[in-house]
Order: sequence, then structure tokens, then C-alpha cells
Amino acid sequence: MAGGVDIGAILARELPAGAVILPGDERLADYGRDESPAGPFPADVAVKCGTTEEVAAVLRLCAEHRVPCTPRGAGSGLTGGCLPVRGGVVLSVETMQRVKEISPDDLVAVVEPGVITGELQTAVEAQGLFYPPDPASLEYCSIGGNAANNAGGPRAFRYGVTREYVLGLEVALMGGEVLRVGRRTTKGVTGYDLTAGFVGSEGTFGVITELTLRLLPKPPAVATLLAIFKDVAGAARAITALIGRGVRPRVIEIADRTSIDHVRGRSRYTFPANAGAIALIEVDGDADTLDGQIERLGEDCEAAGALDVFAANDPAERRALWEARRLISPSLKEAHPIKIGEDVCVPRSAIIEMLGRVDRIAADVGLPIAVFGHAGDGNLHVNVVSDEDPADPASWAKVDRACARVFADAVDLRGTLSGEHGIGLIKRPYMHLEQSERVLEWQRRWKAMWDPLDLLNPGKLIPERRPTCSE
Amino acid sequence: MAGGVDIGAILARELPAGAVILPGDERLADYGRDESPAGPFPADVAVKCGTTEEVAAVLRLCAEHRVPCTPRGAGSGLTGGCLPVRGGVVLSVETMQRVKEISPDDLVAVVEPGVITGELQTAVEAQGLFYPPDPASLEYCSIGGNAANNAGGPRAFRYGVTREYVLGLEVALMGGEVLRVGRRTTKGVTGYDLTAGFVGSEGTFGVITELTLRLLPKPPAVATLLAIFKDVAGAARAITALIGRGVRPRVIEIADRTSIDHVRGRSRYTFPANAGAIALIEVDGDADTLDGQIERLGEDCEAAGALDVFAANDPAERRALWEARRLISPSLKEAHPIKIGEDVCVPRSAIIEMLGRVDRIAADVGLPIAVFGHAGDGNLHVNVVSDEDPADPASWAKVDRACARVFADAVDLRGTLSGEHGIGLIKRPYMHLEQSERVLEWQRRWKAMWDPLDLLNPGKLIPERRPTCSE
Repeated sequence: MAGGVDIGAILARELPAGAVILPGDERLADYGRDESPAGPFPADVAVKCGTTEEVAAVLRLCAEHRVPCTPRGAGSGLTGGCLPVRGGVVLSVETMQRVKEISPDDLVAVVEPGVITGELQTAVEAQGLFYPPDPASLEYCSIGGNAANNAGGPRAFRYGVTREYVLGLEVALMGGEVLRVGRRTTKGVTGYDLTAGFVGSEGTFGVITELTLRLLPKPPAVATLLAIFKDVAGAARAITALIGRGVRPRVIEIADRTSIDHVRGRSRYTFPANAGAIALIEVDGDADTLDGQIERLGEDCEAAGALDVFAANDPAERRALWEARRLISPSLKEAHPIKIGEDVCVPRSAIIEMLGRVDRIAADVGLPIAVFGHAGDGNLHVNVVSDEDPADPASWAKVDRACARVFADAVDLRGTLSGEHGIGLIKRPYMHLEQSERVLEWQRRWKAMWDPLDLLNPGKLIPERRPTCSE
Repeated sequence: MAGGVDIGAILARELPAGAVILPGDERLADYGRDESPAGPFPADVAVKCGTTEEVAAVLRLCAEHRVPCTPRGAGSGLTGGCLPVRGGVVLSVETMQRVKEISPDDLVAVVEPGVITGELQTAVEAQGLFYPPDPASLEYCSIGGNAANNAGGPRAFRYGVTREYVLGLEVALMGGEVLRVGRRTTKGVTGYDLTAGFVGSEGTFGVITELTLRLLPKPPAVATLLAIFKDVAGAARAITALIGRGVRPRVIEIADRTSIDHVRGRSRYTFPANAGAIALIEVDGDADTLDGQIERLGEDCEAAGALDVFAANDPAERRALWEARRLISPSLKEAHPIKIGEDVCVPRSAIIEMLGRVDRIAADVGLPIAVFGHAGDGNLHVNVVSDEDPADPASWAKVDRACARVFADAVDLRGTLSGEHGIGLIKRPYMHLEQSERVLEWQRRWKAMWDPLDLLNPGKLIPERRPTCSE
């Protein structure tokens, strides 16, 4: 019970049988966790909403009874963004999984928020269409959460992030009002951009109940190139050279020596002993143009000192080239009891400097740090791992110390705390590193405009106002 | 004087000599007009601000003395957005023309708002870089106005609109606070997207004093194709075919028979008598891939019944192919004393239906209507022309009647009032056609958050609340 109100009983009266998960139900524990190390934070009640009307009813009743409400998609977030830190109700849209429309003529899809991103991609590709954003979690994350967090992925280098694909939204607001914002057309400047405000607001402004998404025609062919370097400087030189030639691959990924060392023996490819970096580059377009493009990209890599270069355009062979990159994150997780993956983003010219600083942090703190990620965008996944006891708070304190220095260095190099994961609960204490108190204050006002009682996903993203001397 | 306050004298005391244009100065008249037919609306005072501090000072003094303040860039808008409809002060940033930084390494430019868009493009292209948004006015519009209106242009089909290129902003708010929002990195999801809110807010939230813009590497080569069809249906078939093949040209423009008839005799090319539509398609990329692409695009057009097809990759020849398209708007203006160009956007599948409805509107109202524009995006420039007396209000009423039907039909076909020009003063009365009173109300609240006294560019974009029966 939250604040003396039996919100579970109130919700159970208005919602369909089975929708409300009440205290004592063991399934409730699932709604207090996500893929971050935060929590668990137990919810008082969870509700599996199946329709917009049900979402609106939950938001109306929570507002009426002053109960916090935390929206949740697939729970795949890495920042604790969907955790009910103040208790109350978890509002899950996981079962709202209808693909309502795919229009090849309008290049548009209309979907419910619980649709799994990878399933949407499969569905649109079957019709010759393409939904570019490809977060690593695409097989289990949901499209509503992608929009709420403005998810990215490797293909963002060429195709941009989720924001560029959200044309319109239906959202339910705290109190139960349902609003349709945005449009169905590719372009449109009619009124203020309410849609862009909801994207990336991490479920603190409203609950997304329907998305109108922009699609592209599916590129006819794709080719992938994997290059092995002795160090990240070589990989960076190759990337600078190809961008300087005016090439716009759809993917430019890198991984460092610590990352490579974790996939040795697991990958089918035997990395040379002196392999210190990999670059994975992918281009798409007309099939007959790709061989020439890949050949030149290979030359760029060789000129920059690549030890080995592989290319593929067959889907199975392309998957094989991606294998080493895809294995990094699970390998780190399996090898170490503690693994925290941050996602700072720095200006492209600062990538090498940032990697050097990460090496120093690893040495100073005494923990291995593996870096891989979206080099084309300067968006680096900095993974701090530890073999110390996860039950001992001192182990986590050491990891936190490393992360705090990573954030400070990223901001010092004119970068940002998060390129694609969002802020949620985990990075909220670091917001002051990057944003002035005035910028934070305007964001608090914006939040208050949508949710004046601070009941929708409270305790996230924007830190509390700091007390001043006179307070 | 506004409201009994001599704001001119107040501003003249705080600002540099020569910055304030006072009543009686004949230059003041220039600040009461833009490229729309609205107005003129005389300003009480105009101020040419040269620095962020001067912009902030004007906003502080206007707030303090409750004087309306209307920001203005190059005055190239088509909707009356920069006109001081409630008098007061026009705040011009036309002289803030510094390109502060162009970074090929970070793919970023930092510029003042008065920089002419075409000059920015020339400057970045000289360094092998590319700023894609290309509004037709690029030789005289300014980049701050582009951001305030979220300007588009032909290349938006592939590269997106201004919003996709604004990474960060410095803005001065009503009252004089200066805020830096956004970032320097390509990706970033740290906090709410304040930047996206300012883009397209038409100078009603704040005054942009600096922009951090995303650049791309300059495409190595460009090729252009012009195809002549006997009707727009043929052009549309060709476009559908090429998009269906997965091709993403950077430009897909069309023009209809009325447009073509206006450039006959002025263009070097002699259009066949039965020419009823043109399609202009442009691709870019590696030089050695373009010939093949253009050849196939030509085949698409021929299969769809093109009467004639021309291709070029040399800059001078490409300009020649663009000539007919570029001549349409000035030819319409020179041929008729009245010409109103709207910019509705419809879903791609509705383009042919929209063109049919425009023909019916032209016949019903008894005025020629020429349609051309960005077919790939469904963004159609619907130009109503009249040879009746522009001094007679009845002539304008007839034009307005045609425009009102164009708006209603665009919305009926699930489109939007404006794809790229914005709403400003001219389209404000039509907002109710497209957006619900609740959507408008939330926008009023957002405006009130930034400017509670409604002093910054008042009377624009969002219509006043409609009185209800009880009021």
C-alpha cells in the first residue's frame, strides 16, 4: 500500500481480471529489476495494460490517489530507468504488441509500444522496408522503450537514432488524458515539436501508447569489412581516412585490446597475438557498387597498418565477421562477476585521448576496462569489470570510482554522459558534471508542466534542486 | 512608444551607438515586412544586435518594461513569422555573421545566427565538408532563421531537415537569461531534448545566439537526372518504382504542367508540347558508382513513360538541368501580380490524389495553381496565382479561399499544413484544422513556460484559446 491507499484493490476494480499483479504474487519481483545493477526496488502493484484506455485508467487512478507510477516496456534498460524507486505502481506495456499497420506506400509503420524492436525489423524487411535503429538489445527490447530512451545502435552513424524515426505518438499523461502528437508525413513543422520532447524523456512526461514510425526502403545489398590492427591509433587513422574521402558507411565499430582478449578462443577467428584493435565497417546500397567500396575501405585499413582484413557480403559470412564484436559484451559478463557498461560520447577528434585516459583510469583504480562501440559517432562503451566480491560494497565503490572518472573525462573532452543508454537512476548523480543548474532547472519546469505532482516515474533523470545556503 | 514607455530611448542608453533604429528613421520600415504578403506591421524600434550580450540586454529591457519583442534573421520567411504584429521592438541578429569554428575532425561548425546559409555551405565545402539542408532561399536566408523554422529543402529526402543538424544552441530568453543547451557530439541523450524544442519554435521560446551544427563529409560526386513526362501520374510511377528498388536519391523533385508552362521560353530546353510533368532526381556518392545509378534511374523513368530523359554529372550541366526547376517560382512571381506559395505535406501515397484535388480547387475558384516541390517527401509547393488587382481585397479573398481548401484537403489526406515554411502569422488561423484544442493547449503551456508574459514574438504560431459558451 502506498500512502495508506490500497491502490491494488482500486486498480483491480477498474481493470480486466488478471491485469493487476498484487502484493504476494511472486511475479511482482520481476517488475523491480532491469538490466542495470540498480535495485531491486519492489513495486507495490504491477499492471499489465493491454490498451490505451487501460493505460489512461491507471494514470487517472494513480493521480487521483497520489500514487507514484513507473512505466515499463521490456525492462531491458541499463540505467534503472523503469524501476519504481518510490514504490507505487509499475505500469507495464509489455503485452501491447500489435503491429497495426505497415505501409510500403507511405513508408510508415504504426505500432504499439510493446512490440519487440527486432520483430518490427523482421516484419518491415519482409515487405522490402527498413527500420534502421539497432540497439544491441534488439532481440528483447521494445520499441516504446526505444523511443522513451531515444535508443541508438551501430547503424546510427549513417541512419541516425530513434528520434529521427518517430513521426508521431499517442501518449497517455498523468491524470489520464490521451494526446496524439506529431504526424504521419516525413516532414512537418506545424506547431511546436511535442513529439521530439517525448522522445528521450524516459517515461517521465507521459506513457507512449502508440508510435507512428518512419521507414526507409530496404537497401538492396550490404557488405561488411573487419580489419585487425595492432592498436586503436591505427584503427582511428583508417576511420579518419575513409571519412575524409567522403565515405559514409552505415556502421563504424571499434574494439580495444581488452575487448579482443576476452573473445580470444571463443571466436572462430584466431586473432594474432599482437592484435590490439578491431574495426568493423559496413556499407549498403546497390549490389554492384559494394565490391568497389569495400575494396577501397580495405585499402584505407591497410594503409593505416591493418594486420589483417576480411570482407563479406553474404549474410552468413557477414554474421561471422560480426561474431567477435557481438561476443564482447556477453564474454565480459561471463568472465567477471561485476561488469558495468557505460556509454559516454565524445567528439570524434577526442576518441584517442579518451581511450588513453581510460587506460590510465584502469591502471589507477586497478580494474580492467574494455572499450568498444560506435567509433563513427564517438560513442564508446566503457566496460569496467571486476573479479572482486559483488556482495561486498567496497567492490562496487571501486567500480563507481572508475565510472565517475570516465564521466568526468568524457565531459572534460567536450563529450556527454550518455550517447544512447539514457540517464535513468544510475547516471542522475552525474548530471551536474555536464549541465548547469539553470539548464537542469528549465528541465524541472518542463517536467512539472507535464506532471506537476511528480508522480510519473519520479526520482529519475533530472537531479533534485540543490539546497542553497539560504535554504 | 509602446504602452507609454519610450523603449527606444531606454535601449539607446544601454546599447552601442547606431544599434538602435528609432522612430522617424526610414530604415525602420524594412523591419515590418518579410517575404510573405502579410503586413507591413510597423515596429516602434528595431535593434541590430551584434553580440549575445546585446541580445540579452534587449530581452531584459523589453521584459522589464513589458514591451513585445520580435526576433528577426534575414527576413526571408514566407509566413510573416518575424513581423511585429503587436508593435514594440524588432530584435535583428542580421549582423551576427561570424563562423566561429569549422572542425573537420569533429564534423561540427559553430556559427552565429545571422550567417547566410549558402555562405556557410560554401565555407564548409571548401574544407571537404557538407551541410545538407538547402532551402530555396539559401542565398539570402540565415541559419538562425533556418533553425527557428526547422527549414527543409530538396535534399531533405535523403539528408533530413535542419533539426537533424542542430546539435546545440545558445539561446537568450525573455528576461535576458542566456542558456546553453545540447551538445557537441553527434549522439547524446543526457537530459530532456531542450534543443529540439527550440528548433521550429519560430522565435517564440527564445532568441538563438549561437548554433553548433553537425556536418557530414562532402560526397565525392553528384549526378542529376531530369525526366519529362506527359503527366504527373507517370512521374509518380517512376518515383514509386525507384523507391521500391531500395534507391535513396538525395533529391526527388517534381513539377506539374502549370509550372512547366510558366518556364517555357525562359528555359534553354524546349519542352515538348505535351510535357505535363518533370521529375528531377539527384544521387551522390563515389564517382564510379554514379553512372550505373543514373542509368538505372533513367530506365525507371522510361519504363514509366518518360518523353525525354537527361543526365549530367558536371557541375555546369547539372545547373542547367536544375534551371527549369529553379525558374518556376520567380517565373510565377513575374507573370502574376498575386502569387501565394503554400507548402503542405501529404503521405507519399496521397500525392496523386492531392494533385487531383488541387486541379479541382483551381477550376472551382477560377485561378491557376502551379504545384512543384519535394515529391519524395510528399511536400508540395502549391502556388495559387491571380492576375486580379492586388489592391482589391476581393482578389485576395479568392486566393485565400483556394488556400483554405488546399489546407483542408491536405489534412483530410492525413497530411500537414506546413512541411517546411512554418506557421507564423499566415497559417495560424488554420491550426485548428489539423490539431485538437488539447494539443494546442499543451503548446500554449509550453510557450508560457518560456515566456509567461507572452512578450516574445507574440501573436504567432499557436492560435488564441477559443472562447467557450460559458466565457
